[in-house]
This record gives sequence, C-alpha cells and structure tokens, in this order.
Amino acid sequence: MLKYCVRRPLLYRLGRAGLLKRLGMADLGAAKETKSKRDPKEKESGSHKFVLKTPKGTRDFDPEQMAVREKVFDVIKGCFKRHGAVTIDTPVFELKDTLTGKYGEDSKLIYDLADQGGELLSLRYDLTVPFARYVAMNKIKAIKRYHIARVYRRDNPAMTRGRFREFYQCDFDIAGEYDPMIPDAECVKIVAEILTELELGDFVVKVNHRKLLDGIFAACGVPPEKFRSVCSSVDKLDKLEWAEVRKEMVEEKGVSAEVAENIGSYVRLSGGTEFAKKLAEDEKLMSQGAAKAGLNDMELLLEYCGVFGVLDRVSFDLSLARGLDYYTGVIYEAVLKGSGEELTAPKTGETVGVGSVAGGGRYDELVGMFDVKKKKVPCVGVSLGIERIFSIVEAKSRRSGEKIRTTETQVLVASGQKNLLTERMKLCNQLWAEGIKSEMSYKRNPKLLNQFQFCEENQVPFLVIIGEEELKGGFVKLRNTKTREEVSLKREDLGREIKQKLADLGKEKLASA
Amino acid sequence: MLKYCVRRPLLYRLGRAGLLKRLGMADLGAAKETKSKRDPKEKESGSHKFVLKTPKGTRDFDPEQMAVREKVFDVIKGCFKRHGAVTIDTPVFELKDTLTGKYGEDSKLIYDLADQGGELLSLRYDLTVPFARYVAMNKIKAIKRYHIARVYRRDNPAMTRGRFREFYQCDFDIAGEYDPMIPDAECVKIVAEILTELELGDFVVKVNHRKLLDGIFAACGVPPEKFRSVCSSVDKLDKLEWAEVRKEMVEEKGVSAEVAENIGSYVRLSGGTEFAKKLAEDEKLMSQGAAKAGLNDMELLLEYCGVFGVLDRVSFDLSLARGLDYYTGVIYEAVLKGSGEELTAPKTGETVGVGSVAGGGRYDELVGMFDVKKKKVPCVGVSLGIERIFSIVEAKSRRSGEKIRTTETQVLVASGQKNLLTERMKLCNQLWAEGIKSEMSYKRNPKLLNQFQFCEENQVPFLVIIGEEELKGGFVKLRNTKTREEVSLKREDLGREIKQKLADLGKEKLASA
Repeated sequence: MLKYCVRRPLLYRLGRAGLLKRLGMADLGAAKETKSKRDPKEKESGSHKFVLKTPKGTRDFDPEQMAVREKVFDVIKGCFKRHGAVTIDTPVFELKDTLTGKYGEDSKLIYDLADQGGELLSLRYDLTVPFARYVAMNKIKAIKRYHIARVYRRDNPAMTRGRFREFYQCDFDIAGEYDPMIPDAECVKIVAEILTELELGDFVVKVNHRKLLDGIFAACGVPPEKFRSVCSSVDKLDKLEWAEVRKEMVEEKGVSAEVAENIGSYVRLSGGTEFAKKLAEDEKLMSQGAAKAGLNDMELLLEYCGVFGVLDRVSFDLSLARGLDYYTGVIYEAVLKGSGEELTAPKTGETVGVGSVAGGGRYDELVGMFDVKKKKVPCVGVSLGIERIFSIVEAKSRRSGEKIRTTETQVLVASGQKNLLTERMKLCNQLWAEGIKSEMSYKRNPKLLNQFQFCEENQVPFLVIIGEEELKGGFVKLRNTKTREEVSLKREDLGREIKQKLADLGKEKLASA
Repeated sequence: MLKYCVRRPLLYRLGRAGLLKRLGMADLGAAKETKSKRDPKEKESGSHKFVLKTPKGTRDFDPEQMAVREKVFDVIKGCFKRHGAVTIDTPVFELKDTLTGKYGEDSKLIYDLADQGGELLSLRYDLTVPFARYVAMNKIKAIKRYHIARVYRRDNPAMTRGRFREFYQCDFDIAGEYDPMIPDAECVKIVAEILTELELGDFVVKVNHRKLLDGIFAACGVPPEKFRSVCSSVDKLDKLEWAEVRKEMVEEKGVSAEVAENIGSYVRLSGGTEFAKKLAEDEKLMSQGAAKAGLNDMELLLEYCGVFGVLDRVSFDLSLARGLDYYTGVIYEAVLKGSGEELTAPKTGETVGVGSVAGGGRYDELVGMFDVKKKKVPCVGVSLGIERIFSIVEAKSRRSGEKIRTTETQVLVASGQKNLLTERMKLCNQLWAEGIKSEMSYKRNPKLLNQFQFCEENQVPFLVIIGEEELKGGFVKLRNTKTREEVSLKREDLGREIKQKLADLGKEKLASA
C-alpha cells in the first residue's frame, strides 16, 4: 500500500483557471462563471453591429443545467413509461396551414419561417396540434403517447420566472374511443405522480369541465354566441379579482350586470366530492343538458381520482376555464402553492416556486379537423411546462450548495513522470475497452498534483497512476480520490478491480442516502 | 397453480384492429401500417387546398422508429460519456448574424425566420457554429462537450438514403490549448468505437490535413489565392473520376494542365504509416513549410491512432478535402464500405449501407471570429450524421423480422368478469406505487381473451388477473404471457414477486443472448 501525501493548503493555493490550463483539462466550470453575460440589452438600433448573444427569449443550457434537465426528464419519462406510453417525435416546423385556426387569439404568437420558395412553414406552437395532425395523417384509432420537445411562442419573455420563447413541453395524451373518464383520471394521476416525485412542494390539480361551464353560462342567461368570450373573462380569475372580471364582462363583453352576478355566484365556487353533490342539487343548473353531462363526468372523475389515491390533490374549481379553443370536456391545471420558504431567482429576487406548471384537457374534435372525412378520434392529455420546474430544481440545488456532476468519468489515468503520454493513452484504451469511463490530460507531461486536483474538483472517484517502476513491474496504482488510499494492482486485474470498487461506492452511497 | 387454456387458433381468428378497439387498448401498430401515406406528392399549385403532410424533407418518428433512435443515441451517448464529455444545448435558432460568413457557398441553404419585428433569426445549420458562439460568449478556455440535436438545411432531400432537411447531428468537440494531436486522435478513436459498436459493417476513417493540402498546392505551383477553389475541386474526388476533376481544374479554375497533373500525382494517393514516411522523403513537398507542418501532425496522428488500436481503420487519404471554410488542420471523414449483403430502402430499392456517416476536423479560428478581441480557442471535433445510421439500423431490424417493443410495460392488470373496473384501477395504483410499469384496459368490461392477446402482441411479460373469488380471498393470479403459467399470490406479495420474476426473465435473456 502506497500513499501520496498531499498537503491540502498547497492544492488550494493554485488558482482554478490557471491550474486547469496548466493541467490541460477542460475547465467545466467556466461556463457558469460568466452566466451574467447571457442577456445583454437587446440592440435593435439602426447601426448594424454584431451582438454576441442568443435570440431574445432563448438560452443556452450549460453542462450543469443539462444535468438538472436530464434529472427532471428522467423522472417524467419514468412516469410516462410506468403508465405504458409510447413516444413519437414530429418536425420542429409544420405547414403554416396545419396551425391555422387552432389557437384563436394566440395565433399572433406563432413564429413563421421566411418565404424562401416552396412551402409556407411555421414553428410548432405546442405539441397537441402536431399530435392531432399525426394521428389523423396515419389514421390511428388509438394511441397513448408522450412527447418531450421544444415549442415556440413569440410571447413577452420573463426568463427568471421560467417564461421563454423557446421552451420544453412534456405531453402525455391518450387518443381513442374509451369508457368515460378512465383516461381522463389517469392524466390527473400522472401529473400528481410527477409533481410529487420532483418534490416541488405543495400543489393542487384544479379540474373543471367545458360543458359544465357552458351549462352555467346558459343557466345564467348568456346567449350561446357569447360563451367563448365570457369564458375567456372567467379564465382571468386566477390573476384578477372578481370585481375586475365582472367589470370586463359587463363593459367589454356586453353582459348585463344581473347575468354577470349570476355567473359570479358559480365561478367563484370550488371544492371536492361534496361540492359536486351540492351542484347536482341545483335544479336550475341541472335543467341544462350540457351542465348535467359535464357534472356527471366530474363526479366520475372525482370517484376515479379517489381510487387512484390523489383526491386530496384535486380541486373541482369552477373558475378554471383555460384559453385554448380546442378543449371540449374536462380541463386541468396544476398549480404549485409554494412551501412557505420560497425559492428566489438569482438576480431579480422573484419567487420561482409558485404558479401553474401543467395544464390540459379533453379535445375530442381536433383530430377530426385534420381528417378529410372529419372522422373524430377523442383525445385527452396533459402538458407539463417544464421550464418553471427547471428553475425550481435549479434554485433548490443552488441553495443546497451541492455540486452537480456534469460528467460520469470514473477514472483519470495519470502520471507524475515525463514521457509517459503513450503509456497513459494505452491504459485509457484498455479501460475504454472494458467500458470504464476514463479520461487523461491532453498535455504531454501534466503535473501529478494538478491531476489530483482535477479529480477532486470534478468528483472523479479514482485515479490510475503509472510511472517507470509500475511499467517495469506490469502493475499500476489505483488511488481513491476521496480517501487518498492507494493500492497496487496487476494491470490485467485493473478493470475488474475498478468495477468492484465502483459497485462498492454505489452501495455506500445508497446506504448513506 | 391454475392455468387458463386458450386455443391459439381462436386468438388469431380475431382481426387486430377490431380486436384492439373492442379491448379498449391503444393500437400501437397503427402508425406503421399507413407509413406509405407519409409523403404524398407536394402540391404547390395556385388553388389553396389543405394538404395533410409534414413539410418537405422532414418526417415524423413513429414509436418503432423512436425505439431505434433511442437505441442508437444510447450507444453514441455512452461512448461520449465514456470519454468524459459534458453536454450542452443551444437554441434551435440563432441571430442571423451569428451564422453569416461561416459556411461559404452553402449559406444559401440556411432557413431564415420571417421578419415579424425584432431580431432577424435563422435556424441552426450545424452544431459547430453555435458551439463556437457558446464558447466565445461564455469565455470558456477549455471544454470537451457533446451535443445531440437537429439542424436544418434547405437542401434537396433524398429521404430514402437518409438525407433530410431536418436531421440529427451528434457532435463531439474538444476545445482548448493542448499538446499536438492528442485530442485529434481521440476524435478518430471515438468515431471508430461508435461505428464498431453499432455494427454497421466495414468502415474506414479517412484523414488528411488542410495545411498539407495547401503545401501540395503550393509545391505544384498553384497560386495561394486559388487554394480554396482548387481544394473544392479535389473534394469531388469521392464522387467523380480524376479525369473529370482534372478537367474542372483546367477549364473552370484556370489551372494549367501541367499543374493539374502535378496535383493529381498527389491527391490520388493514400495509405498508412508507410505512406506518410514516403511523403516525408519528397523533398519538393517538404520544402513547403505548411506541408511539412501538416505531415508532422499526420505522423503523430497515425502514431496515436496506433496506440488507440484503430490504425487498421484509418486511411491517410490526400483526396479528402471537405468543403467547409472553417477547418484549419486535420480533417476526417468516416465512410461505410458496405458488407457485400447490402441493405436496401423499402420503396426505392436504393442501397442504404454505404457512404459517409461522419466528418469533422480542426477549426482553430472559429471561436476567435466571435470574440471582440479575436481571442482564439483551438477546437477539434467530429459530427456523426445519424439519419443514415438510423436507416441502416431500421433496415437491419426489418430484415431480422424481430418485433421492436415500443413500451416497457411489465404488467397488464386484467379481469374477465364485469364491474371490476375500480378494482383493476386499485391494483394498477398499487403496482405504480411500487414502480412496476403497468397498464389496464380503458374499457369498463374488457374481454379476458382480448387482454391476453394484447400482452402477446405487445410483448407484455405478465398479467395480473382478478375476479370476485380472488377479491374475496385477498389474492390475485399472476400469469406469464409466454408460458401461460399462472400462480396465485397474496396481494401484499404481488410487487415483490413480480420484481423477482422480471429479474429472472432478465437473467434468462442475458443467458440466451
């Protein structure tokens, strides 16, 4: 047993950047240090000057952010797969016509491609319309799929709060003719599973029903042609006071004060199973066929949510309306309630742990819009808005002070002696062949101390060290970065020994977790 | 031990589509059946008629294609991680200015976004320029990163041969000031590892050097201002005969017949270490500083490739020129040589197993183009063109007749009796909580036979079956889809038993592989 003796202070006397440069290793931290360079003020003045930046509302993901992103995606994909979903992918742009007439007022936020001859194209605005196009185009009768991909909206970005122009959506949808509310309940279950597993704090999944809303409007005396417009006012209740929404209805939507009051007496109500029962006793409301059908659905949904063990997370909330045109049945929105000890964004101090993180609903007509014979395929699904979740997970990991690993390197092949470059290369080659994640310095003659420090900084658990003596004897030294213990090993045993030690480390970690 | 007795013929008497519909399960095969609907003839006539298709040169990935794609990506990512790379991501579009002046003639293939106010944007053309922009913007001195993402080129698509307008690139690059040819050799090693592991048949990694080419041109009497233009003629040697390239040089590029012959005496040569030695004895060539520097690099590269055990895959080929403007040193191209038993594309009968699948080189000036102080960060990297690889892996899997699983579902929770929907839901809920991938039919009362067949079709290894009797007794039946064996289990033992059986199945598979 050999042991190098390295005094800690010496190690840390060396500056990081200079040291890594001398060592000839990639400086993985560099990206982070200059993050503040990311968003210089946009210049759109007349004089043409090249600005080094990403487009407005977009960002790069550096290695640490990618590590967070992968972790979050793994949880989400894990859940989707646990529920038996397949996955598909669609092009980042669609024919412009495919998106036309699907998003109502929001259509103005669609990115178009320049007309350079050929087809007119637009970047996808969500994953739902491309999914419906895919289902119709391939004449699919039933599919349960997830799709994780970026979508594009020329919206006003608020990047510290996780609102971007290019952002990820994680969609889970069930298409097919089934018995009522069974897939609808699974969507709620999935959102609850994912938000719980990601440990984002307390949350609620609000649920409501388009038909029930329509029934309420009818019962309150709103003429059918005003349903959609009144609905979009109701949709603002999560941001505005009732008085303001009421004002908008009366002054902008041309609803009488009495009708508005009627609507208000419903859409400010929410509850659970008991609340649904009480609504069922409302004769005026139940005389509306749409309201009755909607409420029946909701009662079944709540029952199934109970069976799935998520009823305590669900709020039947008549104020939930959701903007998009294509919903026809149940609608959802998941909202983080914050945990008391809020997480804040680094520069602005804004709270990142509160707000909507998922939404969705049933859209039974959308596929039919793409089919020549208008053949419908009923669909229901949810979409997780993942950027806000990234912000929260990032803020949590910043607060914990834990360093995120950005590589999976297991071994650094090192030497303190000169002219052993090709020997280090040979050893790396041997380890790669055995499937061990290995690196070496790209300098001909790196300093041993720097190689040690690289492993400490980057949490590389082991070093394999060679010198003239080891080469002659056909052995190597294996050093544990953390304990600094060193053992001599025969070269041919190296791969097996490292795998054993990595397995032991893994068990230790599990045991201490 | 109980055992259901199902006669095979009965199972198969039922049609697939109708059966799945009656069963209430997602028809995962449907996407495949209608693949031929994907590419109807493009209509760009005057009359505006909605066409149901993806944009020209793009495609959807159906669940089976996604499974192939994941498999290929896993191999590639595995290799990149084995070599210690971090990963980053960049926006799908960049400021138009960022791409300007980087691609020479190919710039006409860049997709621009429409000017809807604000910044002028273009879709990324490759991952190299965004990487250089990222390195410069974040003042990174050294990074080893991979990036797997889609890029966009308004090229003439040839989709059956894997040439698309939207396609994946898998890039691995090493940026930083290092000792000569060490990172350059690792790039060759990585390409060789990936192509070997993907079992794509015989291949060769051609290598050459921009400086050596410049030295050859100088030694042959080409004036420096014509280097680039002559180089682009040489680049055509992989598709054209020498006589044609010679003609282009003389007639279009204004090179004399004698000079062209001189060039031809070099650029048709290729070999290995011996060839490099012979070139080093060419006094006329070695009198050119650039040629000598380039050849020194190549000798070192070949030595290191030998150490890495991939020299037999490498061909030092003076005809390799590569089009892109930004290369400054070593250049690579990996070419599949075909295996004798060629794979053909389904409709056209074209050969898919031959041709270029990776390329790259050293580009020491590109980062400096983005830096205010023109500070250079030397870079070298390779890019795998993955669509061709997808085509090959897909063709191989079609030929093998093996059915690709598109879900990971482990258990179908089933019943043959009526009114047990919520009981099935409860069981699913129990299994999900234990991390077991489980599905159930979305029909209230599905037929048992259909549930059996669903598992056979989709290779779901187990069914958990309940009936009134089981519910009363607090147990369930666990059925092996393949062997049709059934055992009775206590409900509380179910999760543990299933995990044990899945582990056993995994071991069997390993043993039989």
